Amino acid sequence: MMKKYRFLSTLAFINLATVIFAQSQNHQHERAIRFPDVPGYLTMVCDFHQHTVFSDGSVWPSIRVQEALRDSLDAISITDHIEHQPKKADIPHPDRNRSYEIAKDHAKAFPLIVINGAEITRAMPPGHCNAIFIEDANALNIHDVDMVFAEAQHQQAFVFWNHPDWVSQRRDGIAHMEPMHKRLIEANQLQGIEIVNEFTYSDEAFQIALDYNLTLMGTSDIHGLIDWDYDVPSGGHRPVTLVFTKERTAGSVKEALFDRRTVVWYKNNLIGREKELLPLIHACLSIEKADYWGTDAIAHLQIQNNSDVDFILANRSPYSLQTESDVLIIPQNSTYKLSIKTLSQLDTLTLTFEVLNATIAPGKHPRILLSADF
Amino acid sequence: MMKKYRFLSTLAFINLATVIFAQSQNHQHERAIRFPDVPGYLTMVCDFHQHTVFSDGSVWPSIRVQEALRDSLDAISITDHIEHQPKKADIPHPDRNRSYEIAKDHAKAFPLIVINGAEITRAMPPGHCNAIFIEDANALNIHDVDMVFAEAQHQQAFVFWNHPDWVSQRRDGIAHMEPMHKRLIEANQLQGIEIVNEFTYSDEAFQIALDYNLTLMGTSDIHGLIDWDYDVPSGGHRPVTLVFTKERTAGSVKEALFDRRTVVWYKNNLIGREKELLPLIHACLSIEKADYWGTDAIAHLQIQNNSDVDFILANRSPYSLQTESDVLIIPQNSTYKLSIKTLSQLDTLTLTFEVLNATIAPGKHPRILLSADF
Amino acid sequence: MMKKYRFLSTLAFINLATVIFAQSQNHQHERAIRFPDVPGYLTMVCDFHQHTVFSDGSVWPSIRVQEALRDSLDAISITDHIEHQPKKADIPHPDRNRSYEIAKDHAKAFPLIVINGAEITRAMPPGHCNAIFIEDANALNIHDVDMVFAEAQHQQAFVFWNHPDWVSQRRDGIAHMEPMHKRLIEANQLQGIEIVNEFTYSDEAFQIALDYNLTLMGTSDIHGLIDWDYDVPSGGHRPVTLVFTKERTAGSVKEALFDRRTVVWYKNNLIGREKELLPLIHACLSIEKADYWGTDAIAHLQIQNNSDVDFILANRSPYSLQTESDVLIIPQNSTYKLSIKTLSQLDTLTLTFEVLNATIAPGKHPRILLSADF
Amino acid sequence: MMKKYRFLSTLAFINLATVIFAQSQNHQHERAIRFPDVPGYLTMVCDFHQHTVFSDGSVWPSIRVQEALRDSLDAISITDHIEHQPKKADIPHPDRNRSYEIAKDHAKAFPLIVINGAEITRAMPPGHCNAIFIEDANALNIHDVDMVFAEAQHQQAFVFWNHPDWVSQRRDGIAHMEPMHKRLIEANQLQGIEIVNEFTYSDEAFQIALDYNLTLMGTSDIHGLIDWDYDVPSGGHRPVTLVFTKERTAGSVKEALFDRRTVVWYKNNLIGREKELLPLIHACLSIEKADYWGTDAIAHLQIQNNSDVDFILANRSPYSLQTESDVLIIPQNSTYKLSIKTLSQLDTLTLTFEVLNATIAPGKHPRILLSADF
Repeated sequence: MMKKYRFLSTLAFINLATVIFAQSQNHQHERAIRFPDVPGYLTMVCDFHQHTVFSDGSVWPSIRVQEALRDSLDAISITDHIEHQPKKADIPHPDRNRSYEIAKDHAKAFPLIVINGAEITRAMPPGHCNAIFIEDANALNIHDVDMVFAEAQHQQAFVFWNHPDWVSQRRDGIAHMEPMHKRLIEANQLQGIEIVNEFTYSDEAFQIALDYNLTLMGTSDIHGLIDWDYDVPSGGHRPVTLVFTKERTAGSVKEALFDRRTVVWYKNNLIGREKELLPLIHACLSIEKADYWGTDAIAHLQIQNNSDVDFILANRSPYSLQTESDVLIIPQNSTYKLSIKTLSQLDTLTLTFEVLNATIAPGKHPRILLSADF
Repeated sequence: MMKKYRFLSTLAFINLATVIFAQSQNHQHERAIRFPDVPGYLTMVCDFHQHTVFSDGSVWPSIRVQEALRDSLDAISITDHIEHQPKKADIPHPDRNRSYEIAKDHAKAFPLIVINGAEITRAMPPGHCNAIFIEDANALNIHDVDMVFAEAQHQQAFVFWNHPDWVSQRRDGIAHMEPMHKRLIEANQLQGIEIVNEFTYSDEAFQIALDYNLTLMGTSDIHGLIDWDYDVPSGGHRPVTLVFTKERTAGSVKEALFDRRTVVWYKNNLIGREKELLPLIHACLSIEKADYWGTDAIAHLQIQNNSDVDFILANRSPYSLQTESDVLIIPQNSTYKLSIKTLSQLDTLTLTFEVLNATIAPGKHPRILLSADF
Repeated sequence: MMKKYRFLSTLAFINLATVIFAQSQNHQHERAIRFPDVPGYLTMVCDFHQHTVFSDGSVWPSIRVQEALRDSLDAISITDHIEHQPKKADIPHPDRNRSYEIAKDHAKAFPLIVINGAEITRAMPPGHCNAIFIEDANALNIHDVDMVFAEAQHQQAFVFWNHPDWVSQRRDGIAHMEPMHKRLIEANQLQGIEIVNEFTYSDEAFQIALDYNLTLMGTSDIHGLIDWDYDVPSGGHRPVTLVFTKERTAGSVKEALFDRRTVVWYKNNLIGREKELLPLIHACLSIEKADYWGTDAIAHLQIQNNSDVDFILANRSPYSLQTESDVLIIPQNSTYKLSIKTLSQLDTLTLTFEVLNATIAPGKHPRILLSADF
Repeated sequence: MMKKYRFLSTLAFINLATVIFAQSQNHQHERAIRFPDVPGYLTMVCDFHQHTVFSDGSVWPSIRVQEALRDSLDAISITDHIEHQPKKADIPHPDRNRSYEIAKDHAKAFPLIVINGAEITRAMPPGHCNAIFIEDANALNIHDVDMVFAEAQHQQAFVFWNHPDWVSQRRDGIAHMEPMHKRLIEANQLQGIEIVNEFTYSDEAFQIALDYNLTLMGTSDIHGLIDWDYDVPSGGHRPVTLVFTKERTAGSVKEALFDRRTVVWYKNNLIGREKELLPLIHACLSIEKADYWGTDAIAHLQIQNNSDVDFILANRSPYSLQTESDVLIIPQNSTYKLSIKTLSQLDTLTLTFEVLNATIAPGKHPRILLSADF
């Protein structure tokens, strides 16, 4: 009887995988989160903060894998709370690596990298921190907070500060550093910080990241279902961290995180350092076609937006637009026609746009140059 | 049973008619162009530049009426060219009032105001000008250009300069005044100017309007079908002139035009003088609900957008937002939830936003204040 | 102007949010499964076969409650396998009532009735059976199969045979009775049978139900997510059992089940005994308006479909239709206009339709009469 | 973090443009009316009954060409009324070929065949008749009705009886023959009959066609706009005549019409003689894949529907379906998965379906055979 059950489960699994793949053919495309690669790096779409029934989440780890596959993510980490175990009565699991192992096993037939992780769950300071790329979550289950971070460092984990703006720990929602955080950073026991967590973005966390040279992180912190919380069927998406890697491997993701090569995609915003953000935007936006008609001094362009972002641009060029006011939206995954009054017929045209939904420092937006030859 | 194969996927029967019928039933409603009234005035949606088979358009005047009804316009004018008659071989009509009369007759059962108009069609200067609220279009069919404008004035018409940026008459697409225009304005024979015509917006025309105190006009200049040219089924709309009137009458529209009480709605842009534009935006956007939760210093607001505009706002308040970067979009006809980190619990909160898709002078955007009491 | 280029067409800016936000705001409404009440009874929408992590499902019981609330179900039962416990290593729970208790607790603020249930999971015969309205699932955890059914009876449970057509137990997918089933029925230890389970419908199970006077059941047997398996965002829905009750209480649901007052809704099919099915269809479909125009002998009707079913009707009236062939679809939740050539102007018109997507016995479809007075 | 408020749900920013732009870019494709070719013949999509401002329509002939191009029609005829000239005051045109000439000129850059036609507009009998493939419409502008038909015959026109069920000429909407019609048919001066005109279908006209061996015609009889009257943006379409031709030429269309090789597509119905209809349905529907899994006796099929028709099928095979009741819908342009309980594993499976939305005689539906090898 038990043998038969096992056989059926395996068979069922295979068929389930087939279904996911079959559905992919219609759905995947629609909900897949896609960004182009940038010069020298792959652009990997990642979510490193997620929960399951093994702490306070509502799903088995297999659902997290299926959500990630539907979203076309490249890498995820399941980061169940070590200290917070509200389902203990039903799941007394002594092994904190369990949700990772189940997820990894479930993902093994798919091109999804699953990284072992855990959420160190403490009062402020230090608040909550995720340690990912760990070797053994159980070894982090110790009382003394300093020893936890030392152990994570010992395991060569990448550690980031979760939701430093969380109202339960900051009544004003303002992220700010305390001595313990500085100490952890100086000891190289804390390398990153969430500037986006679930439905919040924090200018102040972003400033901390810039001041202390931390890796910028954006995560879903999902407890329920991605589809519901982010209204995926209507076009919504979870926050993700875009990681710029040399190869499509876990090791390369880890190296990139330690090297701070990330951009956060949150709602319709791209948030990152200019060094990573400018190449990404230039990989997303380009002039496909440029023409003058007859003797008219109007340059007719087709701008290609090769991403899921609706870019909000402000014209900072010396020319006025014929078909737009100075602020315009280039919709995601589209070719947008734009005409510019260049006063005479030019050989080369360079347009300058401020990208208002991209942020390189609190309140600061990058400028891009788009060029075309005629 | 336990786990079973899942051979039916997304192509299993779905309720085919759902979307389609829901859509059908709401069609009229969806495409209606709606703006709220402002203090002291009605907001009337108008299109004063349209063509029919009686000049170089492709439809009978009745279609123009039906398009206007589907768009929920309040007033239109059919402005066939007086001098340009490419369908003369088939429609040798001597009576230039004919398209107006047919449209008016067709509209008589509906709450749509049809205004007699005609397009004076000349080389630059003066280029093309629309005379509306005329009594007899035939009387404008005279060769001498000065006499035409004098006759329009004699009929107490409102006259506006069409597409001063038209490439056929301005190879660089840059609107600029010539002595004849100044003379017409001084003689009070020209009162308005198109800053938007069909698919073009002109910063330079807007500046001329400000410099010479002209009424701001935006029109479709439709020759074919509104639905096709502006992709109405996908949510597009024709450019319209919003006229702020005391009553829902032709006379009140005329008075408002002479008094320059207009705002142009073009694509997703509102363009007008601050005096008319600020009250309109304030009529569109308001804070519906404002709360603090517990002892948190986060103000949770619901902003109501009571219009067809997707407002692009930049936060210029002294507080940072919890749920957004500093640039955000408040989608049309929706309630948008927004949270602000106000540092302490306030009795009254006033937010300042720059409205980036509203323009009060070339490159200049208005600021609005939104207030809430707790 | 006269003729102008029209280089911007469908990619011109369109009001992006219209459709999507309209959708968002009505989401809950759209996926709600709604059927009208019938004379003398409430129509309750129920799903009595569902799994969680407490057997071989992938979600915590709270997700099942949230799915049910989003689907607007009236009553559910969580029916985890008693004997099949593949997650035992992580959830060694000795208490078989646990998933019910968690779900019930989660639902207590909502108008959703949660009924204690369990799946008796055996080789064929008897195969799998759900016992619902049980008092203690633990008491059903006994080896002897006869004693299990006796215990369920002792608890006054309602018991139904799950997927009698399951290929793992019937290689040809053909449901058929064995002596044990007859014995259980005679002993009043088995009252219902699934004619629909997940993605399968069984004509043969339906015939068994008719032959042995069993209650007709249709269930999702969900293990993963309702939204994914039934493609809810695209308009799909889980199979449900419509139960016709005197009151909106668990007791009344139980009484109705024992009294066989059910109809199954599966894909676009309503399946039931004529006694229950005819009143339901008549509650769904009605003539709202009936007119003759002038002296024409054409009856113009508006048929209201007050349900989520796309009714496929075949005209069996003595009159031919003017606007349709003899087979037509009345889309869900719509008003459909239909014209009939009645030869003369009648005082009363009665139309007969065979309802092709309703089934009252294998291959047999009911006929409805729709009447209108003029 | 542990538990957090989730106040932002569906109104959080979503990627607005996805669906809409995908739609825009495929618009032309979406509304195109497409049917596969059949063995030995091309399937050409045609509409031979349309009006312009040159009789009682509301648009210039160029709009008819643009509508046809958007609908991907292969051939059209503009058939303005010869005798009915309500726009005479404005368009006193003496030349009845004018609307054809304008349309033909407008279409010359496109793969659309424009055929000269005219509507002979008389009281009943004979009522209205379209003569197409005429050489000179002016020559048909004569008073004597017999001479008109003789002249059409002289010009080798194809002539069909328009809306024989029109309530203005038949108060009961029942098409019936009068002696004049029989005489015209016998004289080979009338070859076809509209069984579908605009929003009406006539069983009685179909019977007349069968009894008198007339070509089956379905037309839009459009006066206003195709997009509005048939709600094209929501998926509606005009009635068309599918003509099965040897080549893509006007001559081949004419030959096919005289040879009665047509099927009418109206709403979701295909109406024609079995000889033409069966090959068309077989060209639309096919089994793409057929499998048994393991030792199960369930045949799993994928049925490809290569057309714009939602086929309503009734299973008339000796096997019952596993995944469906006996009546099912195969949605347009999709692959539909279907499972059949074949009792044992067969080498070849032949399924019989009655196609309920196809009609080969009043109230009579064709049967198709779909076969698969394993």
